[in-house]
Amino acid sequence: MRPLVSLIVFWTLLIAPFLGTELGDPTKSVFEPPNAIAGFEKPIAQLALEKKFLAVPDPKHAEQDMRALTATPHLATTPEDRKTADYVLQKFKEAGLQASIEEYKVYFGIPESVSIDIVAPEGVVLHGPSPERVDGDDGSKDSRILPAFNGYTPSADVTAEVLYANYGRPEDFDTLAQAGVDVKGKLVIIRYGEIFRGVKVLQAQQRGAAGVILYSDPMDDGYFKGDVYPKGPYRPSSAVQRGDVHFMFRYPGDPTTPGAPSSATAERTEAAQSASLPKIPVLPLSYADASPILQHLAGPESPRSWQGALPFTYHLGVGPVKVHLKIAVHYEYRTIWNVIGTVKGAEYPSDIVLSGNHRDAWVFGAADPGSGTVAQLEAVRGIGQLLKAGWRPKRTIIFASWDAEEQGMVGSTEWVEQHAQELSGAVAYFNMDVAVTGPNFAAASVPSLKQFMRDVAKSVPSPQGGSVYDAWTERTSGKSPQRNEVFPDVNGSARHSSAAPPHQDVAVGDLGSGSDYTPFLEHIGVASADMGSHGPYGVYHSAFDDYTWFTKFADPKFAYEQQMARLHGLQVLRMADADVLPFDYEDYGQEIEAYIEYTKQRAAESFPEGGPKFDELTKASKRLQSAGSMLLGAVKAGRAASPARINTALRDAERAFLTNGLPSRPWFRHAIYAPGESTGYEAIVLPGITEAIEHHDQQALVEQIQLTTAAINHASEILESAHSF
Amino acid sequence: MRPLVSLIVFWTLLIAPFLGTELGDPTKSVFEPPNAIAGFEKPIAQLALEKKFLAVPDPKHAEQDMRALTATPHLATTPEDRKTADYVLQKFKEAGLQASIEEYKVYFGIPESVSIDIVAPEGVVLHGPSPERVDGDDGSKDSRILPAFNGYTPSADVTAEVLYANYGRPEDFDTLAQAGVDVKGKLVIIRYGEIFRGVKVLQAQQRGAAGVILYSDPMDDGYFKGDVYPKGPYRPSSAVQRGDVHFMFRYPGDPTTPGAPSSATAERTEAAQSASLPKIPVLPLSYADASPILQHLAGPESPRSWQGALPFTYHLGVGPVKVHLKIAVHYEYRTIWNVIGTVKGAEYPSDIVLSGNHRDAWVFGAADPGSGTVAQLEAVRGIGQLLKAGWRPKRTIIFASWDAEEQGMVGSTEWVEQHAQELSGAVAYFNMDVAVTGPNFAAASVPSLKQFMRDVAKSVPSPQGGSVYDAWTERTSGKSPQRNEVFPDVNGSARHSSAAPPHQDVAVGDLGSGSDYTPFLEHIGVASADMGSHGPYGVYHSAFDDYTWFTKFADPKFAYEQQMARLHGLQVLRMADADVLPFDYEDYGQEIEAYIEYTKQRAAESFPEGGPKFDELTKASKRLQSAGSMLLGAVKAGRAASPARINTALRDAERAFLTNGLPSRPWFRHAIYAPGESTGYEAIVLPGITEAIEHHDQQALVEQIQLTTAAINHASEILESAHSF
Repeated sequence: MRPLVSLIVFWTLLIAPFLGTELGDPTKSVFEPPNAIAGFEKPIAQLALEKKFLAVPDPKHAEQDMRALTATPHLATTPEDRKTADYVLQKFKEAGLQASIEEYKVYFGIPESVSIDIVAPEGVVLHGPSPERVDGDDGSKDSRILPAFNGYTPSADVTAEVLYANYGRPEDFDTLAQAGVDVKGKLVIIRYGEIFRGVKVLQAQQRGAAGVILYSDPMDDGYFKGDVYPKGPYRPSSAVQRGDVHFMFRYPGDPTTPGAPSSATAERTEAAQSASLPKIPVLPLSYADASPILQHLAGPESPRSWQGALPFTYHLGVGPVKVHLKIAVHYEYRTIWNVIGTVKGAEYPSDIVLSGNHRDAWVFGAADPGSGTVAQLEAVRGIGQLLKAGWRPKRTIIFASWDAEEQGMVGSTEWVEQHAQELSGAVAYFNMDVAVTGPNFAAASVPSLKQFMRDVAKSVPSPQGGSVYDAWTERTSGKSPQRNEVFPDVNGSARHSSAAPPHQDVAVGDLGSGSDYTPFLEHIGVASADMGSHGPYGVYHSAFDDYTWFTKFADPKFAYEQQMARLHGLQVLRMADADVLPFDYEDYGQEIEAYIEYTKQRAAESFPEGGPKFDELTKASKRLQSAGSMLLGAVKAGRAASPARINTALRDAERAFLTNGLPSRPWFRHAIYAPGESTGYEAIVLPGITEAIEHHDQQALVEQIQLTTAAINHASEILESAHSF
Repeated sequence: MRPLVSLIVFWTLLIAPFLGTELGDPTKSVFEPPNAIAGFEKPIAQLALEKKFLAVPDPKHAEQDMRALTATPHLATTPEDRKTADYVLQKFKEAGLQASIEEYKVYFGIPESVSIDIVAPEGVVLHGPSPERVDGDDGSKDSRILPAFNGYTPSADVTAEVLYANYGRPEDFDTLAQAGVDVKGKLVIIRYGEIFRGVKVLQAQQRGAAGVILYSDPMDDGYFKGDVYPKGPYRPSSAVQRGDVHFMFRYPGDPTTPGAPSSATAERTEAAQSASLPKIPVLPLSYADASPILQHLAGPESPRSWQGALPFTYHLGVGPVKVHLKIAVHYEYRTIWNVIGTVKGAEYPSDIVLSGNHRDAWVFGAADPGSGTVAQLEAVRGIGQLLKAGWRPKRTIIFASWDAEEQGMVGSTEWVEQHAQELSGAVAYFNMDVAVTGPNFAAASVPSLKQFMRDVAKSVPSPQGGSVYDAWTERTSGKSPQRNEVFPDVNGSARHSSAAPPHQDVAVGDLGSGSDYTPFLEHIGVASADMGSHGPYGVYHSAFDDYTWFTKFADPKFAYEQQMARLHGLQVLRMADADVLPFDYEDYGQEIEAYIEYTKQRAAESFPEGGPKFDELTKASKRLQSAGSMLLGAVKAGRAASPARINTALRDAERAFLTNGLPSRPWFRHAIYAPGESTGYEAIVLPGITEAIEHHDQQALVEQIQLTTAAINHASEILESAHSF
């Protein structure tokens, strides 16, 4: 067993279970909540409080919120988006929060017209994009739906021959080069999946492509995976995945205000100069529309691993298919609306626990982001009931409903950039996004919070019987964590890093990028977590991610919405009220040590003649482990400094991982995690070191090892200071 | 290095290379034939003879033979089949062989009419089978082509609901049972691949199915693999895989004469009583015809690993698709024609070296079996040149052109059953079947011949430059032998057994079943080998396996036909003239020891409480290794008995592996190899023991271990007797 477990036994009082099973389905296996909570000296009082909270989230309320939030398409900056902001504001106020809307003016495009035509060879017809239609789902006929487009594509009018580039990864373009296929001046058709779509576009752009067509292959989320909507949850032939393609792995948020908030009077980079804006046009297509293009490509057969599930053999091109692509997007500075609701902390008001979820949607946004907003609103309602009963949290709680996440985390990024100063007191940021698409729970967080995530899951009943933790471990037992297990590919959220060490307990993934925790963790060093309850989700970013789809496939009884609201509320409650913050830096140090081992291997391969030494770095990771375990030991034995001093240390240790930023993209300042430059979603660990290895730059590698070592040692010093008085 | 290699250096004279590169393509890497041959005391003379032989096989002649043999469809028993027999007889005679046609009367069906219709649900249309048609290949319009059918299907008129059973393996039917899908009274649609089609039918029959529809999924050999005919070599949508479905893993050959030759006056089992005849009708379909059936199946989604490449989600059924299947086959006793050509041995006339290839075809049979027949005829022509120059082999050579192989090795089986007595002098049987479909050489044999197969490959130039061995090792280097590497799946020939030990040298596979070596090896214990040069081959058993396909994709220049003729001729020449037969029983013993280790593991899993001991068996395999190595050592040191006595021992050691047959299927008498009961093609090793384990029958296991031990010890005794005088 890991040390923390025995610690908890000493550190908290053992009490008889007093929470009944009434929260779970009584016909299923009995839910037995734990009777101790890490970080609480008086668990009985806390458990009583939690019991009150857990009784509030309600499927009926969740259903009403979902219906209201998905009534119309509500792309960021539109009047319908503003209406959802008002709805959330109202709910925040009803719960007793101090709530307001915070606006930004951001560079934003609205498509005016989009068309794609096959102009050669003769007889091959595509005049698209075709409308998204299935029997039994009329939402897609809503006249307010804009043409399907990719966020931050430039306008363009291009006619060029087409070639196929699989997933558009660097290695896919390498394969094309080896096959003698020249990308220059061509339109590249790329299937969605594997990596962030903006990376695909950058890869194509860097090779001189004239434009990119993105499409959803039925192998990846269509009929090859299972029945398509409306029969099943997978992508029907007309459904289009929209999505942002700006280079948010360089910096997210408004492309014209890197590192600074987009206030009305902000100084701005010219769009043409922005390092995060693509320079070539990008259009998303359904597989019905992509099919005639792919079917008539000539040239060599594609590698067999590039074959998708359309009923013909895939070829590379180039041509003879020639496509005319015309995209007109009107760019201007438009208003977005974050809704911010606050409960002032009674004991440590400048310590802040944050909850966040975006609210803007590509179309109706039932799963993405409605399922998260609904769970957040029910968590807020639960906390509102506690407030009405006179409770006050020790720490300040902020609930945020972000706007324009779909354009690259614009609302959250601008807010973080604006409030960086106050956020130096931030304790933790709990994110949701696609919170519910099915019954399979998964979570990702910084290592110091992984055990906290498991503990919260033990305290909430699962609709499947037992606790969420029970269902989670049962589903994943015997399986090594797969990337798509932790979060489904389409979510674009956190993934389990391949560098993560195996763990005895259920795997909590690592945070990469793709949702609003990014600015908190990777720009200002706030310990973060993300979670969701997942299932087959083929309608991602299409017009079919609506109330009908959601209630048919994702969560017909809103039981998982209730579960997620309970989990999310408990995260916030425990973090806001803990006597000692439940961070485990021994875990953090252990994971970092595993990352170092993994990275050292990569360095040894890259520098076979012998590269820089990792000894000091490894020593730093071991020091962090012992600093973490000694602090918890001191707390346990009553030898520690004052709780306030301990908590400040635990809060600030994460901040110590900040550096001056990665050499090639200084907005990303976390020494341990960053999104991969060529993956966009997946976390790369020790990013400064990893990128120096990838660039085979020995001098940079030496520097980055030093900087990372210093950052980890800084975290240890902070922890050590709290038990050496 | 393995011991044999150094042995050869001593045992044969080292001479300067005297074979030039004129046989290879001079623009490619130089072909350097070896200058020593295992088993020959005077390699110079033998190499001179081989040089003469190797100069004969000629692409032009091969092309003429191919054109003649594929001019018409020539199903066994038809007048066109008889014409090919006459053609081969003529060629044998021209080469100077004593040649004749040997006839049998065999139970055989000719289809009179075949139809399949979808009768429900309304609006789903299939009235088939549809004709096989592609642009640019008119052969398929030949009026002599019979309706596509499965050999030995009974006639039937069935209307029933349909369900999908993936590859029809036992585990697939288990999955259906677990899903609550009842096969009884239903038509089962099964995709080709993975196992012998007759096993699929037996599995369905045993579960009470009303009939079976077999189809070729485009995932397995159609557009998912690559471009389809006529653009590429893969299966076009209308192409049907015909094929025998009788239970030849119980016994091959005429179903009415198990173990005995089908002479005109033979005693016969009633067809209704035959253990090898299926009782339910079977019809093969193209994927164009199978598509509407599969597309409209309801019921649960199939497991995702069952999904094929047709453009919809595959379901299990049952129904609502209901199919009317009507098959009328006229069964009677019909004549088949083996062509047998003999060259009498000058020194050991009762020692026989055999070459075999079938001649009957499902339709035109270019690759299958034309490519083998063409190579055999060119090898015969080469040997004819030697005969004309006055050469006589030491041992008798028999060239056989088998009939009715496509109905389950009928011609070869009946002939072996008839000539079992004379064949007690058989030294080795060299098979070809689908000899050429592309450039990738592969071979399979008993372990005692594996090094011989490599040595022959070193002595023949490859059209790719260097020797066949060079191309073979280069292609497979760094790869562990894949089953489909050794022989492509559709061939149904020998596979690399999963029990085979890893080998330092290029892998030679194990023989299972599926071609005419079966009766030789597994019924009468003749050391056997099979080989071919393979490539993408999607037209297997369809009307498109014709001259046009062959010359477009398999071997446009007939260079690989020339290669295969040279290899085959060298096999025969060396085995017929060797001073000491080139069998390596140390290799055989090593492989058997690996099989024992593998099987012991399986026994340990099946009898966790502790099953019978394998110690005596392991000891026997070690004794065989040392008997093999000591005999070769004695030969090397001149301490061995007379060459005749050594050769007789080496010849008869294989025969020692025969037992009284497997308990459930006594026709199969080899203690080391048999086709799998639930695979049909793939070799299972130590079959008596393996089946006792599978039946969890401890008593049978003890018996089979004893019988197998005795057989191996018997082989050792024979070898030991030859160097202890």
